[in-house]
Amino acid sequence: MLIATSQSMHFAEPLALTSGTSIRAYDLSYETYGSLNADRSNAVLVCHALNASHHVAGVYEGQAKSEGWWHSMIGPGKPLDTDRFFVIGINNLGSCFGSTGPMHANPDRADGQVYGADFPVVTVEDWVNAQALLLDRLGIQTLAAVMGGSLGGMQALGWTLQYPDRLRHAVVIASAPNLTAENIAFNEVARRAIVTDPDFHGGNFYQHSVVPKRGLRIARMIGHITYLSDDVMNEKFGRQLRNVVANAGATEFAAGPPQGKLAPSGGSAAHEVASVGATESAPGRPKLASTPSGGSAAHEVASVGAYLYSTQEVEFQIESYLRYQGDKFADYFDANTYLLITRALDYFDPARAFGGNLSKALAAAKAKFLLVSFATDWRFAPARSREIVKALLDNQREVSYAEIDAPHGHDAFLLDDARYHGVVRAYFNNMAQEVGV
Amino acid sequence: MLIATSQSMHFAEPLALTSGTSIRAYDLSYETYGSLNADRSNAVLVCHALNASHHVAGVYEGQAKSEGWWHSMIGPGKPLDTDRFFVIGINNLGSCFGSTGPMHANPDRADGQVYGADFPVVTVEDWVNAQALLLDRLGIQTLAAVMGGSLGGMQALGWTLQYPDRLRHAVVIASAPNLTAENIAFNEVARRAIVTDPDFHGGNFYQHSVVPKRGLRIARMIGHITYLSDDVMNEKFGRQLRNVVANAGATEFAAGPPQGKLAPSGGSAAHEVASVGATESAPGRPKLASTPSGGSAAHEVASVGAYLYSTQEVEFQIESYLRYQGDKFADYFDANTYLLITRALDYFDPARAFGGNLSKALAAAKAKFLLVSFATDWRFAPARSREIVKALLDNQREVSYAEIDAPHGHDAFLLDDARYHGVVRAYFNNMAQEVGV
Repeated sequence: MLIATSQSMHFAEPLALTSGTSIRAYDLSYETYGSLNADRSNAVLVCHALNASHHVAGVYEGQAKSEGWWHSMIGPGKPLDTDRFFVIGINNLGSCFGSTGPMHANPDRADGQVYGADFPVVTVEDWVNAQALLLDRLGIQTLAAVMGGSLGGMQALGWTLQYPDRLRHAVVIASAPNLTAENIAFNEVARRAIVTDPDFHGGNFYQHSVVPKRGLRIARMIGHITYLSDDVMNEKFGRQLRNVVANAGATEFAAGPPQGKLAPSGGSAAHEVASVGATESAPGRPKLASTPSGGSAAHEVASVGAYLYSTQEVEFQIESYLRYQGDKFADYFDANTYLLITRALDYFDPARAFGGNLSKALAAAKAKFLLVSFATDWRFAPARSREIVKALLDNQREVSYAEIDAPHGHDAFLLDDARYHGVVRAYFNNMAQEVGV
Repeated sequence: MLIATSQSMHFAEPLALTSGTSIRAYDLSYETYGSLNADRSNAVLVCHALNASHHVAGVYEGQAKSEGWWHSMIGPGKPLDTDRFFVIGINNLGSCFGSTGPMHANPDRADGQVYGADFPVVTVEDWVNAQALLLDRLGIQTLAAVMGGSLGGMQALGWTLQYPDRLRHAVVIASAPNLTAENIAFNEVARRAIVTDPDFHGGNFYQHSVVPKRGLRIARMIGHITYLSDDVMNEKFGRQLRNVVANAGATEFAAGPPQGKLAPSGGSAAHEVASVGATESAPGRPKLASTPSGGSAAHEVASVGAYLYSTQEVEFQIESYLRYQGDKFADYFDANTYLLITRALDYFDPARAFGGNLSKALAAAKAKFLLVSFATDWRFAPARSREIVKALLDNQREVSYAEIDAPHGHDAFLLDDARYHGVVRAYFNNMAQEVGV
């Protein structure tokens, strides 16, 4: 069993930010797995997405259920093999999982108040700069690879443009060269839900000893809808009622809490295995009445009388699932962090400085690329990955691209589909030979 | 100019509801256009969707801008020609546009309090029953057609099952035989936003003289995202910034308020021309700074410095559009009505009583059918209409089906695409010959 240890590095020098401001001093939380080889050529940086952390692999000592959020991908013998590579996870600035964020004391204030709404807006570029500084301190000049999914993939892409000479490979999974209007729209609704929650207090809710949980719940529910494909939602929940125990294929869901049942390896739950050092608890598992309902599939069974006819009670399983996910998220995630990270997503757009021309923007990249997308991912659709592939090919870059026909939507990047993991494994195997590990 | 007059009919007999309860007495608002012919064979009932009303066509006397929500489709010389057909629009129970709803006095209470959260849950089936009673009072036994889009299409489908001998044709546009898990999920998030707004007061906000506007805004923003296609959002908004005047194709948008500019005939705005008898006002038109930005398309122009770097201010045009739509909606729509109508959508599922077998469910239908769907509608995708078509064909019913390659998403059913209107016009022309008008 790979044992993880959360570490922290303090930076006393100010970090200049894309917005024109700076952050005076800060800490970055990180973890490393495996060993750096003699010529320091086997380091792989793994970047996290919206609500994950630096805890990407392994478990904490004595906490068997504290798996890192990408543990199916990274570890001894895994596609990214920590027996060969030295893997680094870094928690980004503005997060709520260890690195300096809105809930920490603002050094610009004499009264010791936390940043709250005053935490500066951070961008993917800022995160990449901070990551590079941490790597300096770890004595790593050149990375074998930077790897990430979703927003993490944007960071990997950012690395190839900001530090083209410091990485050999970029592994960009289920990502995009920028957000579409629809992507931004979903982020904006989530932000409005948080900001207009009376408990948000303009971002300074810490002083009021409240948390804008209503807004966080709505934000998370919206997020979950966009993580899943329509098909997998229909397959797993369909029109099943909350008060009817399903049989046939739905039995496993009826027997336990909704979360974590989407896929054996975590699914959406994997987005959440991020609380640093804390054993994952199972708060408030919703109970399901045991009303056996005959022999056919659940969505074909319920008699007319089974509807509750209520506008506010849970009627359908999908509602129960979303409420549960929302409640859980609101218990641990920071509202200001949610705003910051969704804004970093909105702002990322390397083509912007090149009149919208992505091919021109990616001319700076020197790395070799692996891109992976998932057929049913409508949040970051395959077409978005293909835009990146095309722009790289326009620049005669070396690029491998795999489009995986997985049913799980955006969440697929966290799951252990054999075709997907096979592609990543093969890519890292080649890389291992290249760097001599 | 077709002049519309809002009318109301009182029903003193209780209406039994699907939920097992009943509504003691109620009023239904309605409008009629054109003339009933001598043998009463040319009546067409038009059913409304989520937030429209009985005001489907024409304008109110002296209010030039008060067009009915489907005025591009219905009127003299329009695809549904009021010179030949007698068209009836009925506002559904639970609505906030005239018919008895949660904001009206509850006759079961001696203190004269309004229903609020006590308004009974109503279903598509209940609405169809109420509509049939109104038609009885109008002396119309058999309809030439029932027509509706989206939730309105569900009512048209419901008519063919509940009153198969009372209609010759059903025109079902951009609809579905039931909601998918994803559809329900979006409804549920919207409802949670409303219900958890502290101003909702469990549905009894009227007594507190407040309106849960925060929740209504979020609900409406979510709705708007699902009404539009990803493509049309990118085309009309893309990544345009709020503080940059777009040129090229975006000029028209920059010149006016965001709403109603999506398409000349109304677009999402058409969902909202529902306030009975009120001239549409133009509240709070957002102003756009006039900063000409060069010669290329807006999404390719903005310089890096143009970002505001803010998590709470409007940065992108799509955000401005959604906030504007949310604000407008919260000013006139009733929160309990939103819950009731989204629940009616959730509950509709004629196959449910037949073990999920839609073909068996539609065996009761005797009408001829026209179904129309739109290629980019991801809320009620063409595949859902095809399910209905297949089930009808399984029963050897006469059915015409058109899949229109319109870019506008679900909203397309309210727009005047020539191919779409051509199909509907041809269908009603044939019907006119059949009924002798």
